[in-house]
Amino acid sequence: MKLTASPFARTARAVTGGLLAAAVVTLGGAGAASAAVAAPAAHATATPGDVAHKYLTESTHLTIRAAAKAAEAAMDAAVAEGQRVSVAVVDRNGNTLVTLRGDGAGPQSYESAIRKAYTAVSFNAPTSVLVGRLQQQPTLKDIPGTLFLAGGVPVTAKGSPIAGIGVAGAPSGDLDEKFARAGAAALRR
Amino acid sequence: MKLTASPFARTARAVTGGLLAAAVVTLGGAGAASAAVAAPAAHATATPGDVAHKYLTESTHLTIRAAAKAAEAAMDAAVAEGQRVSVAVVDRNGNTLVTLRGDGAGPQSYESAIRKAYTAVSFNAPTSVLVGRLQQQPTLKDIPGTLFLAGGVPVTAKGSPIAGIGVAGAPSGDLDEKFARAGAAALRR
Amino acid sequence: MKLTASPFARTARAVTGGLLAAAVVTLGGAGAASAAVAAPAAHATATPGDVAHKYLTESTHLTIRAAAKAAEAAMDAAVAEGQRVSVAVVDRNGNTLVTLRGDGAGPQSYESAIRKAYTAVSFNAPTSVLVGRLQQQPTLKDIPGTLFLAGGVPVTAKGSPIAGIGVAGAPSGDLDEKFARAGAAALRR
Amino acid sequence: MKLTASPFARTARAVTGGLLAAAVVTLGGAGAASAAVAAPAAHATATPGDVAHKYLTESTHLTIRAAAKAAEAAMDAAVAEGQRVSVAVVDRNGNTLVTLRGDGAGPQSYESAIRKAYTAVSFNAPTSVLVGRLQQQPTLKDIPGTLFLAGGVPVTAKGSPIAGIGVAGAPSGDLDEKFARAGAAALRR
Amino acid sequence: MKLTASPFARTARAVTGGLLAAAVVTLGGAGAASAAVAAPAAHATATPGDVAHKYLTESTHLTIRAAAKAAEAAMDAAVAEGQRVSVAVVDRNGNTLVTLRGDGAGPQSYESAIRKAYTAVSFNAPTSVLVGRLQQQPTLKDIPGTLFLAGGVPVTAKGSPIAGIGVAGAPSGDLDEKFARAGAAALRR
Amino acid sequence: MKLTASPFARTARAVTGGLLAAAVVTLGGAGAASAAVAAPAAHATATPGDVAHKYLTESTHLTIRAAAKAAEAAMDAAVAEGQRVSVAVVDRNGNTLVTLRGDGAGPQSYESAIRKAYTAVSFNAPTSVLVGRLQQQPTLKDIPGTLFLAGGVPVTAKGSPIAGIGVAGAPSGDLDEKFARAGAAALRR
Amino acid sequence: MKLTASPFARTARAVTGGLLAAAVVTLGGAGAASAAVAAPAAHATATPGDVAHKYLTESTHLTIRAAAKAAEAAMDAAVAEGQRVSVAVVDRNGNTLVTLRGDGAGPQSYESAIRKAYTAVSFNAPTSVLVGRLQQQPTLKDIPGTLFLAGGVPVTAKGSPIAGIGVAGAPSGDLDEKFARAGAAALRR
Amino acid sequence: MKLTASPFARTARAVTGGLLAAAVVTLGGAGAASAAVAAPAAHATATPGDVAHKYLTESTHLTIRAAAKAAEAAMDAAVAEGQRVSVAVVDRNGNTLVTLRGDGAGPQSYESAIRKAYTAVSFNAPTSVLVGRLQQQPTLKDIPGTLFLAGGVPVTAKGSPIAGIGVAGAPSGDLDEKFARAGAAALRR
Repeated sequence: MKLTASPFARTARAVTGGLLAAAVVTLGGAGAASAAVAAPAAHATATPGDVAHKYLTESTHLTIRAAAKAAEAAMDAAVAEGQRVSVAVVDRNGNTLVTLRGDGAGPQSYESAIRKAYTAVSFNAPTSVLVGRLQQQPTLKDIPGTLFLAGGVPVTAKGSPIAGIGVAGAPSGDLDEKFARAGAAALRR
Repeated sequence: MKLTASPFARTARAVTGGLLAAAVVTLGGAGAASAAVAAPAAHATATPGDVAHKYLTESTHLTIRAAAKAAEAAMDAAVAEGQRVSVAVVDRNGNTLVTLRGDGAGPQSYESAIRKAYTAVSFNAPTSVLVGRLQQQPTLKDIPGTLFLAGGVPVTAKGSPIAGIGVAGAPSGDLDEKFARAGAAALRR
Repeated sequence: MKLTASPFARTARAVTGGLLAAAVVTLGGAGAASAAVAAPAAHATATPGDVAHKYLTESTHLTIRAAAKAAEAAMDAAVAEGQRVSVAVVDRNGNTLVTLRGDGAGPQSYESAIRKAYTAVSFNAPTSVLVGRLQQQPTLKDIPGTLFLAGGVPVTAKGSPIAGIGVAGAPSGDLDEKFARAGAAALRR
Repeated sequence: MKLTASPFARTARAVTGGLLAAAVVTLGGAGAASAAVAAPAAHATATPGDVAHKYLTESTHLTIRAAAKAAEAAMDAAVAEGQRVSVAVVDRNGNTLVTLRGDGAGPQSYESAIRKAYTAVSFNAPTSVLVGRLQQQPTLKDIPGTLFLAGGVPVTAKGSPIAGIGVAGAPSGDLDEKFARAGAAALRR
Repeated sequence: MKLTASPFARTARAVTGGLLAAAVVTLGGAGAASAAVAAPAAHATATPGDVAHKYLTESTHLTIRAAAKAAEAAMDAAVAEGQRVSVAVVDRNGNTLVTLRGDGAGPQSYESAIRKAYTAVSFNAPTSVLVGRLQQQPTLKDIPGTLFLAGGVPVTAKGSPIAGIGVAGAPSGDLDEKFARAGAAALRR
Repeated sequence: MKLTASPFARTARAVTGGLLAAAVVTLGGAGAASAAVAAPAAHATATPGDVAHKYLTESTHLTIRAAAKAAEAAMDAAVAEGQRVSVAVVDRNGNTLVTLRGDGAGPQSYESAIRKAYTAVSFNAPTSVLVGRLQQQPTLKDIPGTLFLAGGVPVTAKGSPIAGIGVAGAPSGDLDEKFARAGAAALRR
Repeated sequence: MKLTASPFARTARAVTGGLLAAAVVTLGGAGAASAAVAAPAAHATATPGDVAHKYLTESTHLTIRAAAKAAEAAMDAAVAEGQRVSVAVVDRNGNTLVTLRGDGAGPQSYESAIRKAYTAVSFNAPTSVLVGRLQQQPTLKDIPGTLFLAGGVPVTAKGSPIAGIGVAGAPSGDLDEKFARAGAAALRR
Repeated sequence: MKLTASPFARTARAVTGGLLAAAVVTLGGAGAASAAVAAPAAHATATPGDVAHKYLTESTHLTIRAAAKAAEAAMDAAVAEGQRVSVAVVDRNGNTLVTLRGDGAGPQSYESAIRKAYTAVSFNAPTSVLVGRLQQQPTLKDIPGTLFLAGGVPVTAKGSPIAGIGVAGAPSGDLDEKFARAGAAALRR
């Protein structure tokens, strides 16, 4: 790391006296990652043994209740149209938050829903849009855990992706994605 | 969910007009998860299409720089004693943040370090302590992803675990854990 | 879930006093999933501790004997033509019911047969037909567990897929599928 | 199969002229598998191409709504006590129906909850009870997919297991199981 | 390989003119592996491009029909006692030949049956006997693919194991093994 | 199954058109599977407890010595041209018999060699030829365990595939396959 | 193997009459694999029980410190441009040496970075270049562990690949690869 | 990393001007990892684009020929006693170098041999000795990839482990280990 050539690094060093803490500040300054906000100083009631504040960052997540609400809204939308689907919500870390295996949904729908959600949150775009990117970069779809089929939509906070909702099992990906959007819409009310 | 029997739920309903949002408030009230803080209203400059604020929660993480600093400190401590180890830092979501495969470390050390870190952050205790719990609950060690061998320590913020540091490859788990503690200590300075 | 906007939900609430039970009724009304039939009340001799009847649904399956019969019929058809194949029957949940690894069949045939059966029951169509769908949606084949090669056929009850039969190992997928159809035909006699 | 000794078999043979169909009847006669009921003749409006009725059996399942209700009730119970857990519901086929990853729950809790649910439905007993069986048969816990830790309970219909509810992440398995029981109780109302 | 110290090697060399072919002869002389017999010269109608005869060995297997017969006999035995089980037959190479997932059998039974069969054929003993060996060698059970629970029996030809039959799902391993033995017995008639 | 009590079985045996015992005979009559030969009666010194002769079939394999010889010949051919490769020999059951990871060979070469060998023995053709088949059936390459890249060749006995040799790591698949052919050639001398 | 060009090979042959010992020396004579150098005789202070010197070869690796330096330089380059990425360094054996999961990087970036690094070191070329090779050989991308997306670069010693650096998570592969090159450049200073 | 407290670090900084390069020197000074030797300057004919010499280390390996020789010697020893086993050689990086699946060896022997070899090289001790360590640390055996059963021995160069030889399939682990030792002994001649 060529520290002397990096303005931020020098500033950071002044503040924190070290290389790595420097980056904390830098990253904070570089903008909000995953809609992260700086932890307000007022909350800093550190326990002995805790990590120093400078090494920490915050990230924004859906509550499990919100994730469940979105999943159920997507399922409701599918049931309302007589479609049998599975639904999944995946967070920005790629961890599955909620799954619902619909009554009578095809066995492939469960894992497909998870992968569509994963793909949408990874690239912050509906999977119906991402399918189009394969024209230019066909090997994008070889990334482990992804599935480039319509039916996944991202959920955002301050414009950053914080979760993905995936639906699978309907006769077309467009239908799946309609239901996924219904799930996401439930979180804007 | 039997809403009528739940005081919090009724309150929540009043506030949010709905089932799931209610829980958001409830959970917020139940205390900070993973050292989470409520996102200050001042930051709420929601983008159209964003999730409503009430569905969100914040969680605290190590920055990647801090995680790397801790990993390197652990590796330094091992090298200083002539030990060949691998080091890993895993976050509270179970995702690996940093790995370092030490020169000449045994091949088993890499995955072992990850699992020790995972175990420490999962149970918020050093793995040397957790080994003792197997006396009472021997099947704890059958939980996927865990390894109940000394060498993993948790990293906390406000008392909650936010990461685990794992070291493996030294002749004894006690040595491994000494190095892991050196890694954690680097984040308290 | 916007309960007030949903007629079914209000009705359901009247019946069950709650959100989720409501959906039970709704789903029942939406038609038979996987050829499901409502459990007749006459059978409802609930054991203390049992789930309330309203939370249950029924689904139709092949008996293991029927599944074995179909698999053997498919194998017979292949052997009659001097072909060496493996055969699998997979249910609508994606679980393998029966496998038969044919004498002298190629090592790839066993897993291929399972995946063809899985694909056919997932999409309720012969895999020879499904191959054609890849023209429009090439990434369908990236769904985990599927194999888009001729040789799998669905088994239906009241028009809904309840199982898939897959055959693999013959020199062509058309042959494989001919044998799979022979397996399915054995269940219509 | 010693056909001559089996009355049912002879009857079946009369009906179906063969080995495997016979068994269909037998199994029906042998009692309800997984709380299965015979499909009432009135529903038998077979589609051309459908499987003959004699090859079919029915099984009882939780609706996805019921499964979600149970999962949420378990989560509510945990939140009410300030515990951070994950919850899973698994059906009798071993397929996961619902998962909820709790806010701030340890990363190990998600898969643990699934495995506890799987274990409870597999053996039709709470996992707290099953732990005791390891005294006699310690290798039971080597069965793939199982986890012998308190926190899983079966859900039954007519005494047969149709699902399992698993909770993980609380400080003790007893607490986990208390919450899982709360989930199951929600389905008896 | 210190050829000069090995009498057989020199002999072999004389016969076959080479190092590796030598071993062929040696192995043949060492007794029948997996009930292997030397390929009779009369059959040696080599195709151009074929491997020279001296590099070949024969091994004995169950036909798929025999394997299916054994599996069905085991299933019959279980059904006759009202037990719900899964059955598997695995060959000496460890490949699964036949599986039958019993109606209403627990989800864990399918993979358990395969592993019991695998274990029995690997060690040429019933798994009920093999459980006893864990007293002396507890880590035997850590060998991948094995399951040391009663319910698996070997099938032999000329005393060598050629297959294993595994049954799982009954309330006790002894019952499982009784059914597995019934399967094996069907191949001695 | 008490065959003598089963009309179909007796018929089947005579005709061979019926189901289980029949097929045993049928398969024998249908020609040699995997270059199988009927076990000569002269060897039939059955042990009490052994499977009856009629349930058995024989298959032809490379001895491990032959497999090692072929692998080394392939490696020699590569080294002679200064190429760094890995080599694998896989039998007709899909089991790996021999692997050699060449000095300095790329890390991808080891698994690639195994898969090429697996593919060649599965389809009884060099993988360079099989690549061409993808023009007509592009999804062939989705069969688990396969790799459609030049470098794998089948080994035959009496025209049937008994093993595959795979080489990977050279700058081109043609080179890899040249070395694999050298390995196969060593078995014809 | 061109034995006659190797003096020791002839000697070896005299001693062992065979193939393998000969090759040991031959390979040494054939040139340095992976930038290997012959171990200087001066270092040969063999311990009793050690392998004889003639069986050994040396290979060149990045130290873990160098690997960490490169990874951090790549991360710095990304952060300097406000990009959120993950970074990995993989050695010539395919083992991961270092990983850094960037703050706010997409969940797919971690494994993608590892696979890009793996691909680059396997084929000793930037993955942006390797993508082009798929035109001629589309199935190259089916090799397990690889990912043919821009963002991976090899690290060489004496022209041989000794490691790969992979970056993933930026909006384009070109950006990813720019950061990977920055990582590699840090090792040339 | 607290550089100011570390004498070596300061020196290193002087030499290399940076954080990470420092450690290179340190590690070099700490002694030879895996029997590594410093690359002699005489060989340093760096290619433009190569890594700077200071970032490199060397490690000692068995040649593939030596590994094959050891594997075959182990196999010879087993065959000489009429035992059917599989053999594996694994290097210090945990990568499998050679495998030999013995004629008629049990299916479990192949993977067992690899794991025994892996365990022996990981801990630099025969697995028969390592079994004893489980008395003190029973969870050692939970480390992924290991198998604590007699039959694995390490291969050393200058006292450091560079490979492991594993044998499995004989009636006892002691026999297996006897054959593994025969393999290792072949490399001392």
